[in-house]
Amino acid sequence: MDSAVTLAEARARGFDCFALSMDYGQRHKTELERAKAVALAGGAVKHQVIQVGLSELGGSALTDDIDVPKDRDEDHIGQGVPVTYVPARNTVFLSIALGWAEVLGARHLFIGANQVDYSGYPDCRPEFLRAFEALADKATAVGAEEGAHFKVEAPLLDLSKAQIVQRAAELGVDLSITITCYDPVDRDRVTYSCGHCDACILRLKGFAEAGVTDPIPYLEEQQS
Amino acid sequence: MDSAVTLAEARARGFDCFALSMDYGQRHKTELERAKAVALAGGAVKHQVIQVGLSELGGSALTDDIDVPKDRDEDHIGQGVPVTYVPARNTVFLSIALGWAEVLGARHLFIGANQVDYSGYPDCRPEFLRAFEALADKATAVGAEEGAHFKVEAPLLDLSKAQIVQRAAELGVDLSITITCYDPVDRDRVTYSCGHCDACILRLKGFAEAGVTDPIPYLEEQQS
Repeated sequence: MDSAVTLAEARARGFDCFALSMDYGQRHKTELERAKAVALAGGAVKHQVIQVGLSELGGSALTDDIDVPKDRDEDHIGQGVPVTYVPARNTVFLSIALGWAEVLGARHLFIGANQVDYSGYPDCRPEFLRAFEALADKATAVGAEEGAHFKVEAPLLDLSKAQIVQRAAELGVDLSITITCYDPVDRDRVTYSCGHCDACILRLKGFAEAGVTDPIPYLEEQQS
Repeated sequence: MDSAVTLAEARARGFDCFALSMDYGQRHKTELERAKAVALAGGAVKHQVIQVGLSELGGSALTDDIDVPKDRDEDHIGQGVPVTYVPARNTVFLSIALGWAEVLGARHLFIGANQVDYSGYPDCRPEFLRAFEALADKATAVGAEEGAHFKVEAPLLDLSKAQIVQRAAELGVDLSITITCYDPVDRDRVTYSCGHCDACILRLKGFAEAGVTDPIPYLEEQQS
């Protein structure tokens, strides 16, 4: 959902967008299929999946056999670093995007990072994004030779999930093809979100607060 | 060769070392086999290969069908960004190392970056390494929660190739299992270095200046 709205924001600002997904051994491959659908529906010039074997390093419930936490209290979701944190994920992700940007001649990296509902991820903080911009200018041939400046754009950084849902409506983003769940289940060719992991809880809360019905299917009826 | 000496420097300083190689679609897979041999011979606790699909982004002679330049004048090797530059390679590499370091509880990242003979790579400059250190403290859970500081150590940064060869001798590093060539050839189960790419030219020059015979086989007799 955040990626879909981020793409729409970039398109609305007039950018030609090259969409990048990272296959880092996440348990839910559905994420990558949906990412492709979202990229194409959102008018990306190209969607590229890059494989990165982060799961071999261990340390996260999103790639390991660690259980994804369920039914946690909303107030506790933002506390500390969650077990779903993939070490250095956004750093690796932005680094690969930087390499592609250099090949393409692009200078703007858009990322759907968001620090409002989910402050536990260190690599979603503005000081991380600014540090990455500083690095990008030193790390690249164009930065070294021409003094080019890279910009990391995170248009959702300070939006609540409810505001992201509202922004999606304003920009005409189809959220029915997005998926947010950390632990989705496939049944009869339909992918159901669990409704109980942190990501589902925050998504459902965002839709509820925005007064919008979430168009995706959940395992049980969550939106009573 | 640089990685082997870097590992020896880290071991000499008393570190337990976890060696990381990146399979980024380089044309010469021999590099990864040799990296494993070098890591084990050098006393690494573990050697891990992580796959990163950088070759799908294009833009480098090391991964694409662009020809590796041969027989260039030594004086021209350091000029500008070489076609063998892989966009954002060291940024991606250090990012993955950072993720692993976080999982392991390590704070020191050693990299064989060297800026003396080969100044064309932007991500081998000290200002790049310092920018990455600044990023690492912002990017990680331990940096965010405990104020942990990561150190990027590049013990070869200011050494000439000749000095690296000398340092290898001092530290007892077996350089016969290393490979440097960008375009090696396998014949009769022996991997021969080409002797003509920039990497071979600089390696051979380093051995010559150090007054040491390079123990690895070359396609023709280079060391007359």
